[in-house]
Amino acid sequence: MAAAVGGEEVTNRQVILKRYVTGCPMVEDMEVVTGTLRLAVPPGSPAVLVKNLYLSCDPYMRTRMTRHAVPSFVPDYVPGKVLDNCGVSKVVLSGHPDFKPGDLLWGVTGWEEYTLIPNPVFCHMINHREFPLSYYTGVLGVPGLTAYAGLFEVAKAKKGECVFVSAAAGAVGQIVGQLAKLTGCYVVGSAGSDQKVNLLKTKFGFNDAFNYKKELDLNAALKRCFPHGIDVYFENVGGAMLDAVLHNMRHRGRVAVCGQVSQYNLEWPDGVDLFRLVGNHIRMEGFLVSDYLGEYHRFEEEMARYLNEGKVVCVEDVAEGIEAAPAALVGLFAGRNVGKQVVAVARE
Amino acid sequence: MAAAVGGEEVTNRQVILKRYVTGCPMVEDMEVVTGTLRLAVPPGSPAVLVKNLYLSCDPYMRTRMTRHAVPSFVPDYVPGKVLDNCGVSKVVLSGHPDFKPGDLLWGVTGWEEYTLIPNPVFCHMINHREFPLSYYTGVLGVPGLTAYAGLFEVAKAKKGECVFVSAAAGAVGQIVGQLAKLTGCYVVGSAGSDQKVNLLKTKFGFNDAFNYKKELDLNAALKRCFPHGIDVYFENVGGAMLDAVLHNMRHRGRVAVCGQVSQYNLEWPDGVDLFRLVGNHIRMEGFLVSDYLGEYHRFEEEMARYLNEGKVVCVEDVAEGIEAAPAALVGLFAGRNVGKQVVAVARE
Repeated sequence: MAAAVGGEEVTNRQVILKRYVTGCPMVEDMEVVTGTLRLAVPPGSPAVLVKNLYLSCDPYMRTRMTRHAVPSFVPDYVPGKVLDNCGVSKVVLSGHPDFKPGDLLWGVTGWEEYTLIPNPVFCHMINHREFPLSYYTGVLGVPGLTAYAGLFEVAKAKKGECVFVSAAAGAVGQIVGQLAKLTGCYVVGSAGSDQKVNLLKTKFGFNDAFNYKKELDLNAALKRCFPHGIDVYFENVGGAMLDAVLHNMRHRGRVAVCGQVSQYNLEWPDGVDLFRLVGNHIRMEGFLVSDYLGEYHRFEEEMARYLNEGKVVCVEDVAEGIEAAPAALVGLFAGRNVGKQVVAVARE
Repeated sequence: MAAAVGGEEVTNRQVILKRYVTGCPMVEDMEVVTGTLRLAVPPGSPAVLVKNLYLSCDPYMRTRMTRHAVPSFVPDYVPGKVLDNCGVSKVVLSGHPDFKPGDLLWGVTGWEEYTLIPNPVFCHMINHREFPLSYYTGVLGVPGLTAYAGLFEVAKAKKGECVFVSAAAGAVGQIVGQLAKLTGCYVVGSAGSDQKVNLLKTKFGFNDAFNYKKELDLNAALKRCFPHGIDVYFENVGGAMLDAVLHNMRHRGRVAVCGQVSQYNLEWPDGVDLFRLVGNHIRMEGFLVSDYLGEYHRFEEEMARYLNEGKVVCVEDVAEGIEAAPAALVGLFAGRNVGKQVVAVARE
């Protein structure tokens, strides 16, 4: 690290937003540029300088690529500036007492090779080195905690209930389904290919699953899978699927709204028959994982135990190299990823 | 009553559904027909035969005028058959031990002059005769209990919170606003005419109100009224207003979904940006008053006290005679009613 302190300059490839996006994002909406970075932290600051190892691709990032008149919960990306999101990084230099060079962290970082994080408030030490580091972008990171908080804190799923998960093979969905199964629920998932449906039934142990692209009538598909209705819907997609689900919920059913990937590329959202909320006293509740960070360590230990015992498994789709990041992100909206989409920027 | 027991035949004018409705309901979708009814109850049955005094016109009735592929919470009306809904009636004959001739009831009855109620499970004695009987179609009936349950049980409005009510001059909205004011909330309502807006500010004591038809930008109107955002939205209208509200909710805001009058006449519901639920952890919960009937007597006593003390007032729009019922119902969708729309079929 001695050389770094001296302020060595390194090349730093970055993914920047080229222009605000309308409609489906394209690789050309982003650009990989090569700059340089001096390896140094401002004297007296709590900054950390990290080398990024794994970057997480998440559908919500699309919502940050459009300029919002009314601010959303995270700042919009700015054309010409580097993207950011959660990732796994290694500390190169630190001005923060909690972190030292060589520490492995997960948290918010830039879509680039090296990031200077001015104030590492959302950086967490990686405690379980027995798993692949990339798990901290997925099952042990934000998607895992999202699944856990959404299923138990928001939807309050209980043993014996009927749970439906959309985008079920994705980063969050695959964990939701497995946690629901461990709780004693009847669990059905939807996904966009036969391969993914097969994964749900075999690898993740869902009771049933269907390929929504092959169903002529989503309402009929749900009726077939849930003849007595749905107690809990873990909502990742929005639009027509949400509408069909609302027609199949049981009295006092709960919808945990995690995301709405089918809607992010639309100029106007699809209509959904929200009056259905009334007839069955349905509660629909959005949530952000940031409200549940206080539960992270409890979650991390519980999930690590499940992973060690083989009770939860995960499937990742790893793109190699930062140049692959734009295509990996865009691929989410075509459903090209099988499992959690990660970009491996560097191995340790 | 002696004559009645003998089975006297009376003329019985009825409002029947003529055809399933598409789009905005018209007077011609209904028909007032004159039949006859023998004043008798089947021997040994718990039926009551009532003379209807006041019938309630409620927007949700529109949803029953279309045939649903997936059953809704109440049966669809059937062409050729009499409509039903809540009303105030006087018992003519009774086979039920709880009711006797001359009793005044509120509950579900037919849109006709006389109704034979085979099993009076949803009939309640009228306890407070000091008020106009029609109040039991409004402030002391289903709309009042709906306001009470939605505001306190569903939305859990608390002192100091900012509450927005749409269709605020209507049967439910006017009560919601007054109960919220009594709780110490800051209350704003929207309505569809300057006259109604004036009522909200003067008669019902709302802190502020606006005519949504005169606002070019609902989002801007809400920002003006709620610079710090909305904690509780009592949702009666759906569509563009709901969308604008979701852009102005505070963190952990609650939306009690009571109705969506702007949506009932549409073939496809308007799109609403439901992803906004996520960013601010908004809970949106539908409810039916039928889940809260156990609280009715507590509510009735509390509301009667408020009425006696002048702390709650109500405004009714009374149409005279059963022939006026179809137009009164249709008028709800043009906002022609000022206050609770009632049909006076007969005075006592």
